[in-house]
Amino acid sequence: MTDVRIDDLPVREELRGKSPYGAPQLDVPVRLNTNENPYPLPEPLVERIAERVREAARNLNRYPDRDAVELRTELARYLTRTGGYAVGTENVWAANGSNEVIQQLLQTFGGPGRTAIGFEPSYSMHGLIARGTGTGWISGPRNEDFTIDLAAAERAIAEHRPDVVFVTTPNNPTGNSVPPGTVLALYEAAQAAKPSMVVVDEAYVEFSHGASLLPLLEGRPHLVVSRTMSKAFGAAGLRLGYLAAHPAVVDAVQLVRLPYHLSAVTQATALAALEHTDTLLKYVEQLKAERDRLVAELRGLGYDVVESDANFVQFGRFDDAHEVWRKILDRGVLVRDNGVPGWLRVCAGTPEENDAFLDAVRELKKEQHA
Amino acid sequence: MTDVRIDDLPVREELRGKSPYGAPQLDVPVRLNTNENPYPLPEPLVERIAERVREAARNLNRYPDRDAVELRTELARYLTRTGGYAVGTENVWAANGSNEVIQQLLQTFGGPGRTAIGFEPSYSMHGLIARGTGTGWISGPRNEDFTIDLAAAERAIAEHRPDVVFVTTPNNPTGNSVPPGTVLALYEAAQAAKPSMVVVDEAYVEFSHGASLLPLLEGRPHLVVSRTMSKAFGAAGLRLGYLAAHPAVVDAVQLVRLPYHLSAVTQATALAALEHTDTLLKYVEQLKAERDRLVAELRGLGYDVVESDANFVQFGRFDDAHEVWRKILDRGVLVRDNGVPGWLRVCAGTPEENDAFLDAVRELKKEQHA
Repeated sequence: MTDVRIDDLPVREELRGKSPYGAPQLDVPVRLNTNENPYPLPEPLVERIAERVREAARNLNRYPDRDAVELRTELARYLTRTGGYAVGTENVWAANGSNEVIQQLLQTFGGPGRTAIGFEPSYSMHGLIARGTGTGWISGPRNEDFTIDLAAAERAIAEHRPDVVFVTTPNNPTGNSVPPGTVLALYEAAQAAKPSMVVVDEAYVEFSHGASLLPLLEGRPHLVVSRTMSKAFGAAGLRLGYLAAHPAVVDAVQLVRLPYHLSAVTQATALAALEHTDTLLKYVEQLKAERDRLVAELRGLGYDVVESDANFVQFGRFDDAHEVWRKILDRGVLVRDNGVPGWLRVCAGTPEENDAFLDAVRELKKEQHA
Repeated sequence: MTDVRIDDLPVREELRGKSPYGAPQLDVPVRLNTNENPYPLPEPLVERIAERVREAARNLNRYPDRDAVELRTELARYLTRTGGYAVGTENVWAANGSNEVIQQLLQTFGGPGRTAIGFEPSYSMHGLIARGTGTGWISGPRNEDFTIDLAAAERAIAEHRPDVVFVTTPNNPTGNSVPPGTVLALYEAAQAAKPSMVVVDEAYVEFSHGASLLPLLEGRPHLVVSRTMSKAFGAAGLRLGYLAAHPAVVDAVQLVRLPYHLSAVTQATALAALEHTDTLLKYVEQLKAERDRLVAELRGLGYDVVESDANFVQFGRFDDAHEVWRKILDRGVLVRDNGVPGWLRVCAGTPEENDAFLDAVRELKKEQHA
C-alpha cells in the first residue's frame, strides 16, 4: 500500500500529532508500573471461571443479557456488604472497564458544548476521555501536598460551571484520599453552580485506611461512585468497571451505551470472581501491609512519600524524575513516571518484588551519597 | 431515594425523552428477531474456549495485550483466506462488537462539527452512534426496491460533504448487497467532496452469494471494511467486531480507543473460535440454504421479498406491518419490525424454526383469504 500516515488521513484536528495513551509495556523482571495486583487468581477461582465460561459458551450464538442483570445484582450485593450502604441492582451499572463507565457518563452528561473538571494531577484518563467525547476539560488545582485546595476548587467550579466534576479518591497517581467533607463541599458547590454531576472515582478504595463514600449517595441523585474489578479483585485482564448511583443515572447511561456492550464471557468471568470475594479481599489485606511497608521504608531512606490509601505509593522528590525512573529500570524494576514533576509512582507488588524495588532505590541513595 | 427520573438529571438536551436502543427481548419459543446464528457452538469448540480462558485467567491480574496482536494476526489470516485479498496484522483492528469499531471510527473521523451519511433504511446503529459521538447524521436516500440510488447518493455527498460515508453490504434490514461498482463510485464521490472516510459494513458478508469488498482496499487508504464474529462465527455473545483498512487507519483509531478495551477473556475466546473457522463456516452454508428456502417459500406464498445476501429476509408488503408482527408473535414466533413501513424482517433459524415461522405466515395468508 502507499505510504500514508495518520496525519494524511482526515482525522479530527485535535488528534493530529497525538500518540495513543498507555504505559510503556517493557519486558523487565519486576513490573510495578500499572498498579496491577501481583497475585494471580487462586486456582479454584480459575477453575470456576473456566466452568462458568464453558456454560456461557454453550449459548454464545445468542446475544448476551443486554442489561447484565445477574452481574449487576451480585455487584450490588458486594457493595452493600463492603461499602456501608445498601444498593440494589437498579443502582448499579457495569461496562468494559471503568474507562467505559466514564465514557458513558461523559456521553450522557458531558459532550460537545459542555465541560468537565478534575483536580490534577489525577487519573489522566478523565481528561483524555473528556477529549474523546468532545467534552471541554478544565484542569482544577491541588495544593503542593496533593490535597484538594477546597477554596480554590470551589472558585473554579463557580467560575467554569462544569457539567461533570471528577473526584478521584484515593487519588491516582498520588495515593491520598479526599476527605468526605471535601467531597460533600464539592458536591454542594457543583449543585449551586449548575447543577452538575459529581463522579467519585473509587478505583482503589478497597486499599484505603478509610471507608467508601457510597453512603453519600443517599439523597444525592447527581452523585456517582465508580469502581473497578481491576485492582482489588486482581482482574485487570477482565476489564470490568461499574458504578453505583441513583437508578435514574443508571437509566440515563443506557441511552448512550452501545447495545450488548458487555460480552457473555465477561459477565460469566466477573460472576465467578464475585463468588470468591472473601479470598480476593485477603490478598488486599496483604497488599495494604506491603504498601504500608513501602511507605515506611521509603521514608526511612529519606524520600518524601505521599500518604497512601491505594495499592501504590508516590515518592520523591527528584530534580529529574525521569532520570531516576531510568536508573531504577536499569536495575530491572519498572515504576511509573506519570509526568508529575519531581515524583515517581511505585505499585505494591509481592514482598519479593517490593524488596527488589527497595534494593534498587537503596543503591541509588548510596550512589548519590558516594 | 427520592423520585427522580432521567429528565430530572442534567442529561444532554438531545437525550431527553429518548429510549435506549434494543430489540424487545421476549420469551417466546422461536426467536428470529436479532439475526443470531441458531446453531450453538460445537462442543469441541466450547471445550477449547474453556481451555483458552482457563489459561488467560491464570494471568488475569495483569492487563490484557493492549494491542491484541495475536488476535489481530489470526483475524488477518481469516480475512486473507476468505476475503480474496491479503491483509496483515497491521491492517486489522478489533473491539467489543462492530458497534465499538464504528464508535472509534466516528470518534476519529467524525465527532462535533462533522457529519456522517448512511443510505436508509440501513443498520440504525450507524446513526445512533453518530449521535452518541456528536457527529451530525445525514439520512441518504434509497430506491423503492432498497437499492442505492447512485445519482441521488452522489448528489447528497456533493451537497453535504460528509466526513464519513457508511455503506452496509449486505444491507441490514433489507438483505440486499450493494454492487462493487456502486461502492467504488461512492468512494470517488466522497474523495471528490472532502475527502472523507468510507466505511463498508460487511457484518453479514459471509452469507452473501457474492464476494467480500476487501480487495477494494488496495490503493484506497480512506476505505474501511468492518466485520463481526457475531453472525458467521455464531458468537453474538462474544461481542467481537473488527475492521480491515490501511495501517494508518489502524494507527489512527488507537488515538481514541480506551486503553485495554479488549479483555483477555474476549481475546482468548475469539482465538479459540478462529481455530474452528472451517466448522463454523459449514453452519453458514446450511444457513444460506435455509435463507434461500425462506425467500422461495415466502415468494410462493405471494409475499414481496427483497433479494437477500444475509442470514435474514425482509418480506412484505403490509398495510400495517406492526399488526402482522404481533399476529406472528401470537403464533410463538418473534420476528423484527424495524420500522420500515410495510416490511418485516425474519432471520434464518434452524430448519425447524423456519418451518414454525412459515407455518405462522401460511396461517395468516389463509386467515386473510377466509
